[in-house]
Amino acid sequence: MSLTNASPADAAQAAKSASHILQTLPASARNDALTLIHDGLAAAKDDILAANARDLDLARQAAADGRLSQSLVSRLDLGKKGKWEDMLKGILDVRDLEDPVGRVTLRTLLDDGLELERVTCPIGVLLIIFEARPEVIANIASLAVKSGNAAILKGGKESTESFVAISRVISQALERSQVPNAAIQLVTTRDVIPELLALDRYIDLVIPRGSNDLVRYIKSNTKIPVLGHADGLCSIYVEASADVTKAVDVIVDAKTSYPAACNALETILIQESALGTIFPKVAGALFGKGVELRCDARSKAALEQALPDIGAIVVDAQDSDYDTEFLALIVAVKVVSGLDEAILHINTHGSHHTDAVVTEDKENAERFMAAVDSAGVYWNASTRFADGMRYGFGTEVGISTNKIHSRGPVGLEGLMIYKYKIRGGGHVTAVYGEGEGRKRFKHERLL
Amino acid sequence: MSLTNASPADAAQAAKSASHILQTLPASARNDALTLIHDGLAAAKDDILAANARDLDLARQAAADGRLSQSLVSRLDLGKKGKWEDMLKGILDVRDLEDPVGRVTLRTLLDDGLELERVTCPIGVLLIIFEARPEVIANIASLAVKSGNAAILKGGKESTESFVAISRVISQALERSQVPNAAIQLVTTRDVIPELLALDRYIDLVIPRGSNDLVRYIKSNTKIPVLGHADGLCSIYVEASADVTKAVDVIVDAKTSYPAACNALETILIQESALGTIFPKVAGALFGKGVELRCDARSKAALEQALPDIGAIVVDAQDSDYDTEFLALIVAVKVVSGLDEAILHINTHGSHHTDAVVTEDKENAERFMAAVDSAGVYWNASTRFADGMRYGFGTEVGISTNKIHSRGPVGLEGLMIYKYKIRGGGHVTAVYGEGEGRKRFKHERLL
Repeated sequence: MSLTNASPADAAQAAKSASHILQTLPASARNDALTLIHDGLAAAKDDILAANARDLDLARQAAADGRLSQSLVSRLDLGKKGKWEDMLKGILDVRDLEDPVGRVTLRTLLDDGLELERVTCPIGVLLIIFEARPEVIANIASLAVKSGNAAILKGGKESTESFVAISRVISQALERSQVPNAAIQLVTTRDVIPELLALDRYIDLVIPRGSNDLVRYIKSNTKIPVLGHADGLCSIYVEASADVTKAVDVIVDAKTSYPAACNALETILIQESALGTIFPKVAGALFGKGVELRCDARSKAALEQALPDIGAIVVDAQDSDYDTEFLALIVAVKVVSGLDEAILHINTHGSHHTDAVVTEDKENAERFMAAVDSAGVYWNASTRFADGMRYGFGTEVGISTNKIHSRGPVGLEGLMIYKYKIRGGGHVTAVYGEGEGRKRFKHERLL
Repeated sequence: MSLTNASPADAAQAAKSASHILQTLPASARNDALTLIHDGLAAAKDDILAANARDLDLARQAAADGRLSQSLVSRLDLGKKGKWEDMLKGILDVRDLEDPVGRVTLRTLLDDGLELERVTCPIGVLLIIFEARPEVIANIASLAVKSGNAAILKGGKESTESFVAISRVISQALERSQVPNAAIQLVTTRDVIPELLALDRYIDLVIPRGSNDLVRYIKSNTKIPVLGHADGLCSIYVEASADVTKAVDVIVDAKTSYPAACNALETILIQESALGTIFPKVAGALFGKGVELRCDARSKAALEQALPDIGAIVVDAQDSDYDTEFLALIVAVKVVSGLDEAILHINTHGSHHTDAVVTEDKENAERFMAAVDSAGVYWNASTRFADGMRYGFGTEVGISTNKIHSRGPVGLEGLMIYKYKIRGGGHVTAVYGEGEGRKRFKHERLL
């Protein structure tokens, strides 16, 4: 890892050259580098925590002056219980995942002695722009090395001291490995993002991890493909046939287990025939957790009838509430006639992230999952399952609402592309065709 | 299919709505629509060829005035031997391919009663901007319907009459099918491309099929992902260990079988130790086919020595020749010391399309294929095999040099993305974790 004060263009060009070496290294060389990084970080714990303490001091001052939120200060703290150990364990977890490089996903015999193979290979150079949490740098460096991709990292300025300390260790570890040092680069100079976003000649993919505004800014200012999501407006549709307990459990978890997450619930769609039966139970449970309900007229009326005591605290929904990612203990509620209206609402107002249906009707559940145009479509499960760790991917670089390449939680597999190999014996194309005396392709699928 | 004079935004919004219906249709409904399109076109042959004749008349006038190239006129002609039949057969070929929608590519048991599934699904709305060849409209409409994607088609103006006649038939066919009419739309109004490229809200992917300049213009002027390639600068590296016959056959085919194709050979890299042995044979064969060789000093000297009669007609290469896609009977020649220099040259000067090595050394061939960062990397085979039909994909929408999503010839599979489905029984996330009394995920891979 280079701690670069080089120009963004020089850094990106060096990363590209390094990527050409990195992508030919065997799994053992990439895994060994991860072991060295892990051991180096473990040995440098005191130095890194001291650097982190300096970041924290500055951040606490900024928070005291009102220039920084308390929650950001909390996320900076590498000394928090379990965080350091989780960071180190994460590196070994990634190391021990199956090698994603060189997997053969298609093999076709084109003709005698002429084989076509599609194999997975690294994408090339990733630009990862992330927020302040200092442990992310180790996580992302691990994913990059394991997947054979070079990476340029640009972290939030509040963690600069921690990043520099960690990247110095990673750099020393890579020096003793076969992975080129320039394969992982930390850019610490400020205001370089516009320059980096113009380097489509060297950078193959941008992965922003940060606020919706950051992601939108990046998507609007680069020709490089961007992997990620701006909004996470997740909905749950509750049918009249739903099991009440499942509806309550799923909705309470989706709304309250971590309201600031992108996979948290923001809109409840309730079938009109469930208004007097299931909805009051759901609403009561949400009230019990301190959730504010923003209801349309019919759902509000239903609550006033079923729960006269608390109906009055319901807020009238505005149209904009159905397009809002609250990221707080607030949820919008809307009555729909049935499945089709629910699907239409979600496809129109949702963010194509993760949406769920609660129903005991299998056929309707399958129709919902087929028709809702989102990266995750769930039946009787909380939207908060949208997460690389929960999916069993080990870890993730983020969650994508893209319609091409990778969608949903993106782990190692989402950092790969493929190439086609052909092995022949001097084969030429001109002899194949439909006419007399022309050869025909065999196109025998071998894998 | 709508023959739309609607605004681009209205057309795109209608396509998006149609895509939500199209993507839930079973394979039988999509296949039936293709049969209806095929039968409709077969029945309307006379009308369509008459419309095509009107396009041809205008084009011939334009060619006579020097406003249009003769080769473009030739490509317009639907009446050319076999073209009409090929177009009709192509529709049935696509229909009979395996259904790409709903294939389960991952299935994991997350916990008892909680299953994660990754299934293929259509991308949504494609914008396909293509050149004048009128048969392309039927080919692309077939691929879109089969893959469950809505498509907005913008064809070259020289084929307008043919396009209108064909799209009228397709529209009538879709009326009698379950595929919504707005799923395939032909935009005939002029100068709408900038407006279409701004509709990232509705359009998920742009596929340009046309000149390098068109592709570059589109890539620079849209936030929508673009699938395709601008350049096709393919190289072949010949090692001293190469079999002479294979080298000659492969290079002659790659350069001369269709020089205007993107997969044609543009640069020969010759190992210095092969200069006196293999290279004169290769050069002689190319001269025999009328190919102009643009040689560096050492390869020129070698030719002057080996073939004194024709060494004098060799052209001196300029630096720019190694970055030029000639698309003509011209090839650049450069001497390299060996494999590493060849790989470096190709990764630096190539277009990441398709590159080949000719060698009898298996280890070097594998190293070449691992290290060259191109969509196609071949050993002892012509670069012109880079083609969807030759790969056994039935047909292609184009060839992609992208590093994400789809690379190389793009068939039905390249027009798909996936979604994750979870089927649970009221499962919530908050109960899982590392602490005491928390549940653990099973993460049992079922597929």
